[in-house]
Amino acid sequence: MSYVVVLLSLFSGCIVSAEYQPTWSSLDLRPLPSWYDEAKVGIFLHWGVFSVPSFGSEWFWDHWQGAKTKEYVDFMKKNYRPNFTYQDFAPDFTGEFYDPEEWARLFNASGAQYVVLTSKHHEGYTLWPSKYSWGWNAMDVGPNRDLLGDLASAIRSHTPHIHFGLYHSLYEWFHPLYLMDKANKFHTQTFVNSKTMPELYELVNSYKPDVVWSDGDWEAEDWYWNSTVFLAWLFNDSPVKDTVVVNDRWGRGIPCHHGSFYTCTDHYNPGVLQPHKWENCMTLDKHSWGYRRNAPATDYISIHDLLTELAMTISCGGNILINTGPTRDGRIAPIMEERLRQLGSWLGINGEAVYKSQPWTHQNDSLTSGVWFTQQEGTVYAIVLSWPRGDVLVLGSVQATPTTHISLLGHPSDLQFKTVKKGLQVALPPMSEVDGQWAWVLKMQGVESPNTIDTPFSM
Amino acid sequence: MSYVVVLLSLFSGCIVSAEYQPTWSSLDLRPLPSWYDEAKVGIFLHWGVFSVPSFGSEWFWDHWQGAKTKEYVDFMKKNYRPNFTYQDFAPDFTGEFYDPEEWARLFNASGAQYVVLTSKHHEGYTLWPSKYSWGWNAMDVGPNRDLLGDLASAIRSHTPHIHFGLYHSLYEWFHPLYLMDKANKFHTQTFVNSKTMPELYELVNSYKPDVVWSDGDWEAEDWYWNSTVFLAWLFNDSPVKDTVVVNDRWGRGIPCHHGSFYTCTDHYNPGVLQPHKWENCMTLDKHSWGYRRNAPATDYISIHDLLTELAMTISCGGNILINTGPTRDGRIAPIMEERLRQLGSWLGINGEAVYKSQPWTHQNDSLTSGVWFTQQEGTVYAIVLSWPRGDVLVLGSVQATPTTHISLLGHPSDLQFKTVKKGLQVALPPMSEVDGQWAWVLKMQGVESPNTIDTPFSM
Amino acid sequence: MSYVVVLLSLFSGCIVSAEYQPTWSSLDLRPLPSWYDEAKVGIFLHWGVFSVPSFGSEWFWDHWQGAKTKEYVDFMKKNYRPNFTYQDFAPDFTGEFYDPEEWARLFNASGAQYVVLTSKHHEGYTLWPSKYSWGWNAMDVGPNRDLLGDLASAIRSHTPHIHFGLYHSLYEWFHPLYLMDKANKFHTQTFVNSKTMPELYELVNSYKPDVVWSDGDWEAEDWYWNSTVFLAWLFNDSPVKDTVVVNDRWGRGIPCHHGSFYTCTDHYNPGVLQPHKWENCMTLDKHSWGYRRNAPATDYISIHDLLTELAMTISCGGNILINTGPTRDGRIAPIMEERLRQLGSWLGINGEAVYKSQPWTHQNDSLTSGVWFTQQEGTVYAIVLSWPRGDVLVLGSVQATPTTHISLLGHPSDLQFKTVKKGLQVALPPMSEVDGQWAWVLKMQGVESPNTIDTPFSM
Amino acid sequence: MSYVVVLLSLFSGCIVSAEYQPTWSSLDLRPLPSWYDEAKVGIFLHWGVFSVPSFGSEWFWDHWQGAKTKEYVDFMKKNYRPNFTYQDFAPDFTGEFYDPEEWARLFNASGAQYVVLTSKHHEGYTLWPSKYSWGWNAMDVGPNRDLLGDLASAIRSHTPHIHFGLYHSLYEWFHPLYLMDKANKFHTQTFVNSKTMPELYELVNSYKPDVVWSDGDWEAEDWYWNSTVFLAWLFNDSPVKDTVVVNDRWGRGIPCHHGSFYTCTDHYNPGVLQPHKWENCMTLDKHSWGYRRNAPATDYISIHDLLTELAMTISCGGNILINTGPTRDGRIAPIMEERLRQLGSWLGINGEAVYKSQPWTHQNDSLTSGVWFTQQEGTVYAIVLSWPRGDVLVLGSVQATPTTHISLLGHPSDLQFKTVKKGLQVALPPMSEVDGQWAWVLKMQGVESPNTIDTPFSM
Repeated sequence: MSYVVVLLSLFSGCIVSAEYQPTWSSLDLRPLPSWYDEAKVGIFLHWGVFSVPSFGSEWFWDHWQGAKTKEYVDFMKKNYRPNFTYQDFAPDFTGEFYDPEEWARLFNASGAQYVVLTSKHHEGYTLWPSKYSWGWNAMDVGPNRDLLGDLASAIRSHTPHIHFGLYHSLYEWFHPLYLMDKANKFHTQTFVNSKTMPELYELVNSYKPDVVWSDGDWEAEDWYWNSTVFLAWLFNDSPVKDTVVVNDRWGRGIPCHHGSFYTCTDHYNPGVLQPHKWENCMTLDKHSWGYRRNAPATDYISIHDLLTELAMTISCGGNILINTGPTRDGRIAPIMEERLRQLGSWLGINGEAVYKSQPWTHQNDSLTSGVWFTQQEGTVYAIVLSWPRGDVLVLGSVQATPTTHISLLGHPSDLQFKTVKKGLQVALPPMSEVDGQWAWVLKMQGVESPNTIDTPFSM
Repeated sequence: MSYVVVLLSLFSGCIVSAEYQPTWSSLDLRPLPSWYDEAKVGIFLHWGVFSVPSFGSEWFWDHWQGAKTKEYVDFMKKNYRPNFTYQDFAPDFTGEFYDPEEWARLFNASGAQYVVLTSKHHEGYTLWPSKYSWGWNAMDVGPNRDLLGDLASAIRSHTPHIHFGLYHSLYEWFHPLYLMDKANKFHTQTFVNSKTMPELYELVNSYKPDVVWSDGDWEAEDWYWNSTVFLAWLFNDSPVKDTVVVNDRWGRGIPCHHGSFYTCTDHYNPGVLQPHKWENCMTLDKHSWGYRRNAPATDYISIHDLLTELAMTISCGGNILINTGPTRDGRIAPIMEERLRQLGSWLGINGEAVYKSQPWTHQNDSLTSGVWFTQQEGTVYAIVLSWPRGDVLVLGSVQATPTTHISLLGHPSDLQFKTVKKGLQVALPPMSEVDGQWAWVLKMQGVESPNTIDTPFSM
Repeated sequence: MSYVVVLLSLFSGCIVSAEYQPTWSSLDLRPLPSWYDEAKVGIFLHWGVFSVPSFGSEWFWDHWQGAKTKEYVDFMKKNYRPNFTYQDFAPDFTGEFYDPEEWARLFNASGAQYVVLTSKHHEGYTLWPSKYSWGWNAMDVGPNRDLLGDLASAIRSHTPHIHFGLYHSLYEWFHPLYLMDKANKFHTQTFVNSKTMPELYELVNSYKPDVVWSDGDWEAEDWYWNSTVFLAWLFNDSPVKDTVVVNDRWGRGIPCHHGSFYTCTDHYNPGVLQPHKWENCMTLDKHSWGYRRNAPATDYISIHDLLTELAMTISCGGNILINTGPTRDGRIAPIMEERLRQLGSWLGINGEAVYKSQPWTHQNDSLTSGVWFTQQEGTVYAIVLSWPRGDVLVLGSVQATPTTHISLLGHPSDLQFKTVKKGLQVALPPMSEVDGQWAWVLKMQGVESPNTIDTPFSM
Repeated sequence: MSYVVVLLSLFSGCIVSAEYQPTWSSLDLRPLPSWYDEAKVGIFLHWGVFSVPSFGSEWFWDHWQGAKTKEYVDFMKKNYRPNFTYQDFAPDFTGEFYDPEEWARLFNASGAQYVVLTSKHHEGYTLWPSKYSWGWNAMDVGPNRDLLGDLASAIRSHTPHIHFGLYHSLYEWFHPLYLMDKANKFHTQTFVNSKTMPELYELVNSYKPDVVWSDGDWEAEDWYWNSTVFLAWLFNDSPVKDTVVVNDRWGRGIPCHHGSFYTCTDHYNPGVLQPHKWENCMTLDKHSWGYRRNAPATDYISIHDLLTELAMTISCGGNILINTGPTRDGRIAPIMEERLRQLGSWLGINGEAVYKSQPWTHQNDSLTSGVWFTQQEGTVYAIVLSWPRGDVLVLGSVQATPTTHISLLGHPSDLQFKTVKKGLQVALPPMSEVDGQWAWVLKMQGVESPNTIDTPFSM
């Protein structure tokens, strides 16, 4: 077992530099693998047995039998026999339409550069045939298939530029060994030693994820979870030691403090530049991460709002991780597929403002709201979320220079501009002559920030 | 449409009895109730046990066990036990999310003026508790609910301006009495007498539909189906005798020849003005009328294409009946809900070019393609499906007069125009200043057709 | 349709004598086909969708949703989802272990000479693919198999001496057309004309049963059911006109008055000689005809009590029809199989007192209780249900003559006997030296009744 | 059996500590708790998820997916969808008719003195809510009930004289951690440490069984299973240390060598006196321990054969453990219930020859076959399995003395006997005057073995 290797290496003495210690101060020294910051856009997938009732949210089980929320209790009473248990849902997790290559093509069409799949959510059901989750995994009950492994293969063989990552919940709501440790105020680690850690090593060794997106950490400290020991192994010795990135959910008090990137809270979108790489994980269904059968169309975020999230996020140094919940039979609902394809069509035109970009001196414009900046190799990009009245845009945070050139992505000619009292005034072409919709990107070469104090952003 | 009314009123002096005879020549004399032509837009709903496998199309059963199409046979082999029968699907037709009031609100939001529900498709399963379909109806197996009656009530109490109509299949693929009659070359009518006719009378008497949308007629002549006898009753004595409209599928050779409106074929959209009221029934899922779980987003018609269908249809004298297939658990999938809401938002701005409109002298423009005309009370409407380059539209089929006023629906000011050699040139406002998207409507008062030769079609 | 044939034959004029009229006075003239009286022992089979809940009795549906008996309502509430309907049980009527040849072998081993299967019970589900019960028959839902036809074939090819008969319920508890006729005080016959009669003709023509065992008649008169018309066809023109026998349940007031044999009530066992051929239909599970999962062993009749029933029945001129309820998966439960095999082993030794026997002058002994008589070709048989104390049996109803010989079936030697004051005293061998158990048969040649008034029993 | 007790008590003066060491030599010193030898008759219950397919045997899973036996593979293909897994059976393990108090009454009626329930068979499913079998136990999936605990309570409160015991399988066919250890040639003990041992301690502490009936040991040595450590705890410190008995299946090579009683093999019935306490575990269904739906009546052992097993077993120093397999819905099939009640009726008459009895000098008679002996407090009992011809029994192994009295249990008077050349000749009463059937017991006081050489019985 791999942690023995780690322990041994602690004593190996002669290791000079490459080794990370299982301490946050050591782990924090690891540089962020560059692919992650450059990727900007990822797809999050919440899939599991909760996709069978597909009601309320992926927290169905906990709401039903933990909190005993009336809406969930009533749903069960009305539609299922008494004594129906959560495990009884599993045989209906059939996945007959699951076509991972089709998924890979869709993710590619969306313009995403990485994918993060829930290998195991708080329910404990693993999408891969884990030795440590016998009878409660996708091979043993339900689809009778390694759902996770098949997606990994499809992505790696069909869209190899997309990085494959995995979400993993440390805790499990109702696992009796976890509840036992918890009753012991976490002074025992039976659950961690016999379940969480073995399965995490198995997961990384078997599927080599480029993202380990941890969750379910908040009830216990990092020392209960053995987080730093696992991360030291992950960074030193695992098969993905050079490429893997991890988030920050590794124990109470850790989020926003340690990790390759910070996710602080769900739907985290601070709106101002952050000193550490971060990620905005958000979901197309505004009220759920898992697929929710009874979500009306109006509960899905519009493409305009999605682009607004994206613009705000990347201009402030974040990545956006866009969630969709597949169905129990293995589909991505068309309403979400359409959003992803709309996103892809937008990125097809405007991608150079996104991929590999960096935050600029300013994040959003001081004069016109709904304008967010990025930069790349000396060029500044303004993502304009609303077309200005009279086809004229005035920017308060940009200053022209003699070498300035301005164009609109999706339109062939250079644009006219002039410096006015308030700032830079740009004449847009007629809206009807521009490719693309929902949001537009000004590409500005040779411009400056009005106040040229250098704000050295680095990650 | 008023022409039949006019014709009939000419003879009304000498009509002694209001009774229609069970002959086409008599039935054809009945004027079209005015609500139908004015309505223009209806919603079609295909719902039944086929919504459970929800694979391929609503013809699932016939493809599987009639034609034995490989794709369907394989689907069953792969996902169901041997000896699974079509009837075994019925218990999963649960409808737990069915909320007919929510449906009524959605139909209202779409701008539709009537709804047509499959009371019974070719599978024979009735959505109401028919005496003549014992054990094979929505009360006896599956949802245990009068799905049809509950929708009728919801629409009548919440959106009473929406007319409630019913689709009904004359034949049933696998009904043994039908097959017996067919084997007898339709010289026996056991099926019609003990099944079809009793259930049609029951249906009309119980639910008072304003549309009886017949189907499944094509294998036999109208005399086998007793169609004219039923229609004479419907027009003379039924509780809906004054309001009901019927289509034309009442026996081999009847479609396109008799009926309140013609539907000739599915997806019927002739593109030129028709001498008889007709309906374009089309479906949001381009490949199926019933809900199809595995339909990708790209199989759904875009809102632009839907508006194109609508424009072509109404400019040529038709109504459009837009189909959606609800799911086995009673939902209208968000992708289709969204299309309907988009349609409703468009009609909210442009409805005056649609409702109660009539075809104009010209149906589409002679110079600019993608422009379709309607008229209402002296005003001519041009539905423009593509925004013209340079914001200038030239119409070859419209001629200004001294009293001409032109505006764009969704934009406050009158538009400039001038007569040029080719026709009428209209200056549109900047696209970014116009409400609405996808298609635009020019409202033209005081215009004429360039060739003032009387084209003697009038309705 | 066959009744047309009947009607025509009424007019055929030249038919001299063989024709029965559709009146009881005519039908009653038909002699009983001899096989039936000679058979004595039959097997009754109650099988249907009620075998799925298999709770309470075959009247499950009516108790649950008709009478709303608490025990049944609670059973459903406790074990099934709300909105579960009776039809939802049908997919679980799978019959995977159904092996009609094995059944035939078992019936043969039991010594039975005929079998009567419920072709359709009051629930309306037909065990054959009836044209008139589409979707509610064994081919369309559940086993996907002609259960009835397969049993007919198995019996005819493997045990051709066993006569194959069919039970058929005239009424159906919840059939809407029946309920409509009933609401009309049976002045309409929609149900009879479109359902009962067509299916009865179909049944007889397709499967040629030697018994038509009618039931469910009691709510209406025979004229409602068209009973005499059907019977006239059955006796005149049907493919089984020479062999078929029918019971007496053909309308209110008919039982015990008309029919090949009388069944008067269930568990009918009058205990005295009857002037008309009759049948004692009784069931191994004392509380149910259909299989009842929760029946304890003590609810099954013992072999001794079964033989008591048999002895009483045949000595009084009846046949015994012994019921067993197969399971939803096609088995005859071992407890019932064992009873049938015990019966068969007893009949193997004692069958000559049973088959083709006739009642004797006396039915049971005047002195010793539990002794019942039959006779055949001058020999009198006494079925002794309890072994007498001291191995000595005294008979009050039998008188020896000079030619008297007495033996015990299953024991090789003649028995000693003497006439004593009370009657005839017979010395039995030691019980341990006699084959067979439970009941014993004395075979008495050359004996007389003490009062030699000839009571000629005839049927 | 008191011999070990006697031996041990000889040494008890010098035993300082009551502690057993985790070695066989130490564990073997523990005396057999007296209740077990006195009990003689137990009921074995095989119940689990295998009761759902209920086909073939309780080894269903292994035959299907391990050995891939054609019969099982075909059964699944014919009756289930592809991808159906064994875990998918669990929701149908509903137990709706399970009434543990009724079971207790039945066991009591059978005359059994202890009950052994499969707490967990080789499939791994636990009938109690084990912390170590999350999601694969009777509370989490299936009946949603602590089946084991409810039986323990019912027996202890209703029939407290019946000892409650538990079967437990050490190995699990398909547990991935077991398979991992096995692949490691059992040099790792991950499975034992994280699964088997924790659950065994949990089981004993929670339910306090008087029997721990181990199984599934044969692939590995006792040191892999930690058997002696567990047993030392069980005998020293567990809540049942004074009453518990264990069998001998604790590792390869252990059966027949160590344990409170030996079970050597299934259906172990050596037919000669054994030097160590042993148990004959046998099953009413001759071909399966789990309930088998398709078992015909002839596959069940007859009551006569069951009594033969019992007589042979106890006369040779064994206990008999009679197995029955309950159904998936919680019933004990009537055919097995009847056998148990027959056994109870026999023991009601003949129990004094059984309970608390000991083997006699001779086990079976030297002259008359089918006669087996026991003794109790100076009285010798002969269990006679066939009634002798002429009602005369001759015993070759028994010798009368002047004080001899002989009677037949179930008959009031003393019997006549005389010594003949071959042995002792006993005149039985007429069979018809004796209570009871199937087998009879001679009660003989003041008799001796013919060869009066004292054969001091020791084990």
